[in-house]
Amino acid sequence: MSTKKRILSAALQLFNTSNTQAATTNHIAAALGISPGNLHYHFKNREAIVLALYEQMQAKSVLSVANLPASIGAVHEHQRHLVKVYYEYRFFHRELLFLLSRDEALKTRYIADNIAHRKRIRIVMQRLVENGYLAVPVDNVLEHLSDTVLMNAQFWQSYLETLGLPVDEAHIEAGFVHIEAAMRPYLTSKARVELAQIGA
Amino acid sequence: MSTKKRILSAALQLFNTSNTQAATTNHIAAALGISPGNLHYHFKNREAIVLALYEQMQAKSVLSVANLPASIGAVHEHQRHLVKVYYEYRFFHRELLFLLSRDEALKTRYIADNIAHRKRIRIVMQRLVENGYLAVPVDNVLEHLSDTVLMNAQFWQSYLETLGLPVDEAHIEAGFVHIEAAMRPYLTSKARVELAQIGA
Repeated sequence: MSTKKRILSAALQLFNTSNTQAATTNHIAAALGISPGNLHYHFKNREAIVLALYEQMQAKSVLSVANLPASIGAVHEHQRHLVKVYYEYRFFHRELLFLLSRDEALKTRYIADNIAHRKRIRIVMQRLVENGYLAVPVDNVLEHLSDTVLMNAQFWQSYLETLGLPVDEAHIEAGFVHIEAAMRPYLTSKARVELAQIGA
Repeated sequence: MSTKKRILSAALQLFNTSNTQAATTNHIAAALGISPGNLHYHFKNREAIVLALYEQMQAKSVLSVANLPASIGAVHEHQRHLVKVYYEYRFFHRELLFLLSRDEALKTRYIADNIAHRKRIRIVMQRLVENGYLAVPVDNVLEHLSDTVLMNAQFWQSYLETLGLPVDEAHIEAGFVHIEAAMRPYLTSKARVELAQIGA
């Protein structure tokens, strides 16, 4: 593994188990047994490390419009993939608003990414209707469900913390179960059959 | 107004327009034209001011079990009341996880309050079923809706921020509209009639 990748891996571990404020670049360098100067050769500061980890998380979770799930089963599978990615980078959602408040460039970038994310979710909802998986009596149900998906993707972990619940994979998955329960009233029989077939 | 109340009022204003880190006790004292010593006579530190404001917000928003809304119209009215309270104390939900991470006593207190809050929400849901406003095919719908209410009450404001939307009363109210949309599939005709009568 390159030094750059090793730094990101060590930082991720420290950020997850402690937090981004407590884990300084000196702590990260010490955890790897490299000098602070060597670390700073690769990353100007902690903000640059957070940004690189955010980009890793995005690369592992964001789908292009062409590759968005077009069936209810594919949505389910993608969400279970997200459980693993969100758990791997759990510091990010835990500290989300704090990180954005401390780094204007990250905030601008994140908001733009998030608006694009909501558009992709809305496209998925529309395709689920077109492909016979969702039946919606009024159009604003799709807006509502898109907000539900994005809201829970970003803040379910925070919600767990406010109830004193552990942030482990099972509890992160409960956030996606919550999303699926929100969609349940609108599922067609075709959708219910497909979900039953994959044991969802 | 007592000095203590004036301090809380000035702190609330500064926390809302700036943030709790930037608004030090010296800033708060200066805004009131009192000495830092006078401020510290009333409040040991900023944490004590945050706690007192949290208690004010709770006093304005928390209902006893006996006074919980028992009709869909009363739920709607209570939520519109909450829009005003949440807007008045908007710094609190904006900084929620950060504040909890910096003050172990506040965190312990908040989590206990929040668990109690979820229990009250669950009681309201049960009463709405018993009183003929909600028809739920399976029992876990009430758990799901309780999570939806509490999740959105706490994090809708954060959600607005991640989409670059303004945190004003209209946008905070949209969070309660979101909650109502989540309940819509389960509303009985009695509930729909009552909501239509109050123009909701």
